[in-house]
Amino acid sequence: MSIRAGIVVTGTEVLTGRVADANGPWLAERLRELGVDVGHVVVVGDRPDDLHAALAFLAGTGVPLVVTTGGLGPTADDLTADVVGGYQGRPSSVDEALEQRIAAVVERLMAMRGWRADAESTAAGVRKQARVPDGATVLDPVGTAPGLVVPPAEGRPGPVVLVLPGPPGELRGMWPAAVASGPVAALLTGAPELRQATVRMWGTLEAQLAATLRDAEPELGGLEITTCLREGELEIVTRYAPDAQPAYDRLVEVLTERHGDTVFSTGPDLDAIVADALSGRGLTIATAESCTGGLLAGRLSARPGSSAHLLGGITAYANSAKEALLDVPADLLAGHGAVSAEVAAAMADGARARFGADVGVGITGVAGPDGGTADKPVGTVHVCVVGPDGRVARALRLRGSRTAVRERSVTMALHLLRELLLGGPPA
Amino acid sequence: MSIRAGIVVTGTEVLTGRVADANGPWLAERLRELGVDVGHVVVVGDRPDDLHAALAFLAGTGVPLVVTTGGLGPTADDLTADVVGGYQGRPSSVDEALEQRIAAVVERLMAMRGWRADAESTAAGVRKQARVPDGATVLDPVGTAPGLVVPPAEGRPGPVVLVLPGPPGELRGMWPAAVASGPVAALLTGAPELRQATVRMWGTLEAQLAATLRDAEPELGGLEITTCLREGELEIVTRYAPDAQPAYDRLVEVLTERHGDTVFSTGPDLDAIVADALSGRGLTIATAESCTGGLLAGRLSARPGSSAHLLGGITAYANSAKEALLDVPADLLAGHGAVSAEVAAAMADGARARFGADVGVGITGVAGPDGGTADKPVGTVHVCVVGPDGRVARALRLRGSRTAVRERSVTMALHLLRELLLGGPPA
Repeated sequence: MSIRAGIVVTGTEVLTGRVADANGPWLAERLRELGVDVGHVVVVGDRPDDLHAALAFLAGTGVPLVVTTGGLGPTADDLTADVVGGYQGRPSSVDEALEQRIAAVVERLMAMRGWRADAESTAAGVRKQARVPDGATVLDPVGTAPGLVVPPAEGRPGPVVLVLPGPPGELRGMWPAAVASGPVAALLTGAPELRQATVRMWGTLEAQLAATLRDAEPELGGLEITTCLREGELEIVTRYAPDAQPAYDRLVEVLTERHGDTVFSTGPDLDAIVADALSGRGLTIATAESCTGGLLAGRLSARPGSSAHLLGGITAYANSAKEALLDVPADLLAGHGAVSAEVAAAMADGARARFGADVGVGITGVAGPDGGTADKPVGTVHVCVVGPDGRVARALRLRGSRTAVRERSVTMALHLLRELLLGGPPA
Repeated sequence: MSIRAGIVVTGTEVLTGRVADANGPWLAERLRELGVDVGHVVVVGDRPDDLHAALAFLAGTGVPLVVTTGGLGPTADDLTADVVGGYQGRPSSVDEALEQRIAAVVERLMAMRGWRADAESTAAGVRKQARVPDGATVLDPVGTAPGLVVPPAEGRPGPVVLVLPGPPGELRGMWPAAVASGPVAALLTGAPELRQATVRMWGTLEAQLAATLRDAEPELGGLEITTCLREGELEIVTRYAPDAQPAYDRLVEVLTERHGDTVFSTGPDLDAIVADALSGRGLTIATAESCTGGLLAGRLSARPGSSAHLLGGITAYANSAKEALLDVPADLLAGHGAVSAEVAAAMADGARARFGADVGVGITGVAGPDGGTADKPVGTVHVCVVGPDGRVARALRLRGSRTAVRERSVTMALHLLRELLLGGPPA
């Protein structure tokens, strides 16, 4: 039996989507590595009653650990420390040594940025940030906000609550100290290993996969299998204790037997596969993008070390740029239009030639919401990849928002690169 | 008093962060527009007990409406419809008319993609997707999964549960029908308007803002103010009923009086401000990126209609590309290094010249995790923007991961563009 935990993400800005939460999933993944299984992440706005209700809910699920993120700033809407203290039966007061440490950090920060400081007004905020529930362990600030480990008051049941700041850099910086702190370390002792592995397929319907899993079910005891369809890719993620390793090996065997021609990975994701294929063969790559506006180059360069194979890319939004910077012939643009298989191919060739790269990619399309026509509606995208072994191209009709069309086009370009470089399921 | 609602996002892939949830925030925002206030978003894995607990929690907060997303696929781990039906006291059975409609969609999908269909195995999945709780309203599938409106069984208290699919395109496509469906429409009747407005500041510490808000508190009745510090920007978001409009106007007045030199927006976000400044003055723009690898061009092109001012960009990852495609002099690269103020300026000039644009941007830096040196550690980034009125440049020392450094660099470039084009708080 693994240990379970719950996570509370606070902040109206997260609840309303102005800020995408990176902390909940990051924490869930770190906890999994420590053998702790997360059942719920509750996102809650900056209201004391809502936060209190979330703590009570998670405590009610019987978890021994709750982790909160956010709500530790100096403004009045940041109230996590006080609410958690209240929930645990530990009233808060100002920790004066902590107050001085935070004040020193704030002063340094202001000086560094050259911002004017109004000593009196910042002092009130610092004083708020230095409030600590009675008996809680303080985790030293990485930014200005300290973390807290708050067990229930003596004699009360309930989970230990680990209170962490919201800015991802501060949260991650504080994590090692949080895990090492007495009450959390005590909980984690003896948590068993929980493995996680992924199989990726391209070209099998989710319903067919479901049938395969149903048939094989008697052999798959001890596996927690979840499947996810994302941008046409079927991702099968399995979590299991070490003693279920044989069952997992059998699952991979069954999937390969029944769907071998569509399984393109039993581990790394698409981005890693393409990067490794390029590096493995010592090939360089350059991109030419229109509707995706640089997102493919952005994705290729997201991986550390990508400069080993990525030479660069040209975003040629204007037709004049396609001609001047990618050598797309003017008569091709006039004859077929900027959104055409011919122009995508010429862009791929142009990127390859201009950068002197082994592999070139061209993407051109109508991302919308405007710019569609009867024969080239929004979502029409042409992708072409060209390399030493030849070229692969695809004409797409994508659905969805401008963002969806752009992201899906980038993913399709990566699948075409995979097909060009490695074969396997056609993109 | 506004109506409140809760949201459940299902899917182990969301809980573990393999897929970022776009649905919770999207739904919270749509509901807000309808006068419905969301207090909690609960993310839950594909386990019946955990989903059941989440429904019970939200029902316990007294909300009249719960919206779920995800878990409607054909695989066994997709179990939302059955669990919601069970929770509401409405056992599920197969709706045969619906089964036929879904089967037709699946068949068309397979044919379109040229995938092999195993009739028998897909039929089981389709049959699963056609299971409907007794007395629920079916919302027609946009993809293959139908939505459901499930009120509590006759005579039972509790919220109406609106069950929507997980793929964002399907969810969004189904939303109008969901809102118009009898039980949901009945709830929404008479929900009052809830306004939301944003003030953005650059160069004020959160602690100073906190002091201002404390001082002004007596005048700000009826406002729900939340502040969020993001990438150096302070975002003050206020939600209020129409009768609190004078209080909101007073808030804007107070912020402008006390922090006028750092308030850069009382509405649009940074991206919109830059786009409007370019369009308003009829200026075109082109980018030259190294460490950000195309992300700035990607962000500039994310807005519909950006082709009116964005000509394109060059991602020059390799030094040879900086020379050949951006005309950065070889001796500049040799003398100052690729990561230098001089090269950032030459890149901005190069982008401007090569695209014939009015405004050019150059970004070069060390995004990490490798590549840092003693005098140019990871996080060293130089940004330069140049336009008809001159140039603005900044040397940065950013902290955090490769992703954080890249994203922050892009944001800083946008602030420099704002400063170049409009003045206001220096970036």
